[in-house]
Amino acid sequence: MNAAITPADVEAAARRIAGVAHRTPVMTCATLDELAGRRLFFKCENFQKVGAFKFRGACNAVSQLSDEDASRGVVTHSSGNHAQALALAAKMRGVPAFIVMPETASPVKRAAVEGYGAEVILCRPTLEARETTAAEVQQRTGATFIHPYDHPQIIAGQGTATLELVEQTRELGTELDAVIAPVGGGGLLSGTCIAASGLASPLRVFAAEPLGADDAARSFAAGELIPQTGPNTIADGLLTSLGELTWPIIRDHVEQIVTVSDEQIVAAMRLLWERAKLLIEPSSAVVLAAVLDERFREVDGVESLGLILSGGNVSLDRLPF
Amino acid sequence: MNAAITPADVEAAARRIAGVAHRTPVMTCATLDELAGRRLFFKCENFQKVGAFKFRGACNAVSQLSDEDASRGVVTHSSGNHAQALALAAKMRGVPAFIVMPETASPVKRAAVEGYGAEVILCRPTLEARETTAAEVQQRTGATFIHPYDHPQIIAGQGTATLELVEQTRELGTELDAVIAPVGGGGLLSGTCIAASGLASPLRVFAAEPLGADDAARSFAAGELIPQTGPNTIADGLLTSLGELTWPIIRDHVEQIVTVSDEQIVAAMRLLWERAKLLIEPSSAVVLAAVLDERFREVDGVESLGLILSGGNVSLDRLPF
Repeated sequence: MNAAITPADVEAAARRIAGVAHRTPVMTCATLDELAGRRLFFKCENFQKVGAFKFRGACNAVSQLSDEDASRGVVTHSSGNHAQALALAAKMRGVPAFIVMPETASPVKRAAVEGYGAEVILCRPTLEARETTAAEVQQRTGATFIHPYDHPQIIAGQGTATLELVEQTRELGTELDAVIAPVGGGGLLSGTCIAASGLASPLRVFAAEPLGADDAARSFAAGELIPQTGPNTIADGLLTSLGELTWPIIRDHVEQIVTVSDEQIVAAMRLLWERAKLLIEPSSAVVLAAVLDERFREVDGVESLGLILSGGNVSLDRLPF
Repeated sequence: MNAAITPADVEAAARRIAGVAHRTPVMTCATLDELAGRRLFFKCENFQKVGAFKFRGACNAVSQLSDEDASRGVVTHSSGNHAQALALAAKMRGVPAFIVMPETASPVKRAAVEGYGAEVILCRPTLEARETTAAEVQQRTGATFIHPYDHPQIIAGQGTATLELVEQTRELGTELDAVIAPVGGGGLLSGTCIAASGLASPLRVFAAEPLGADDAARSFAAGELIPQTGPNTIADGLLTSLGELTWPIIRDHVEQIVTVSDEQIVAAMRLLWERAKLLIEPSSAVVLAAVLDERFREVDGVESLGLILSGGNVSLDRLPF
């Protein structure tokens, strides 16, 4: 399956979502450059539609359905950004979306998904219940299941952020040496890998992961996929395990995975808010936390670094500072 | 003095600060468009250097000093964004900055100004003490006094945001019908007026002001300059009175000044944070609050509106929500 996703797929996804997804801005901040000892270029997916990069993949997947398949709708299980992204992508194509959410999901998130016109189906808050319920909905409706990350079109769509980042940084007069992305299920990171590998001058790829959900770092060290159990981190977008599709791509392309504590994540989040005025969620702050970590400081040859800020969906009533 | 500031001055300022000040992004948000019933284009000066538009004017003024004048430095009195802006502009030219601040100013703001290498001189927290102290510093050092807003080069510099806004909105395929800016001392608003009046298709200009510091609206209604006394609003960047230079420009160019309550300002601030992911200070939220107000809804012929978000310097420890 790995070989099935190529840089050409990412380029095709970029053409497909152009003018539909936002071409989000790339921002710089002199203060953060000084702190990191490198030039940092932030790809601001917090300004993407639905407030997260997830819209890229959802849009790419929904747009490739046949009219007949599309008419029966799409289904997924997610309590986070993928739920909103798929709901909006379906709404824009004018087809139904069925979103399976755990009954413990916040009313705000549920309302957001319903606000995009999707039908929410509640289930018990276990992975098994989510998968069973999604399968039932799929059978009942004939909707197409769109996995949040372990799906070739989702991965290709997420990779488009890196293509834009490279182009936009070049417009600013700089060639990137490397890119760093956060890793949860690995959709964004594996898409980043494929996009980076297809460039005329391939980028080095780094990953940032919370210590409290470090299955990617442990898998990387062991050389085999180790699922995440009992994740515990403020970076609530990065709780999931790597998938069968995303893991081998990450294993083969990523140079280093830097793990960071929640304390580092909150400190980095505050820096991004206060100094760069970038309203991002904890899962996005993980990349800056990694870049400021001692282990990343030892990395040589990376003068210009792209950082993918994955999203900005954070509850203002429960800020960690 | 009014006739002395022309659109050509704003264009010259734009050339002068190009590559020094940031060309801040223009952002859009479909949700806010729906709420406003118009297409909104946000000029994001929260991403400007020092986190506010004030850097434009300071940079324009400092760069026009002769080498001899510059060597003796610049002086101003301000506890806000102008203090940081002037300090950074002086630092970038390699000349001294003397900033008179009230002894009640927050340690964070003082540290920020000192962080840019400026010398801070504390005084009692009255306008008289600030002016007297600044005059003393000026006499002692030979530094040039740069007023926060009632200064031709400051006004011309602030107008550059509007020139960029118009160009960037055109790059997005839209011609603006009007622009709205917040009004405190009137430097940004009067610069906006002059920039807007010099365009091939002049823009209509609106202003937004907090009810708790509504000297501009009262002056506008009375047809004469009425100073602000005892301001009381969360929009702490808009407490000052209009100046001798800014008032006649505003009187002659602004179509309407919409006043809004602090409650409206906080609600608009939350919308910008939550829906647009724009981390802006209360003084910036005033423009969106005005646009969502019933009185602005009655304005005809404004399909595409530019909103100048003045800055993003807000204390994360004292958020109003």
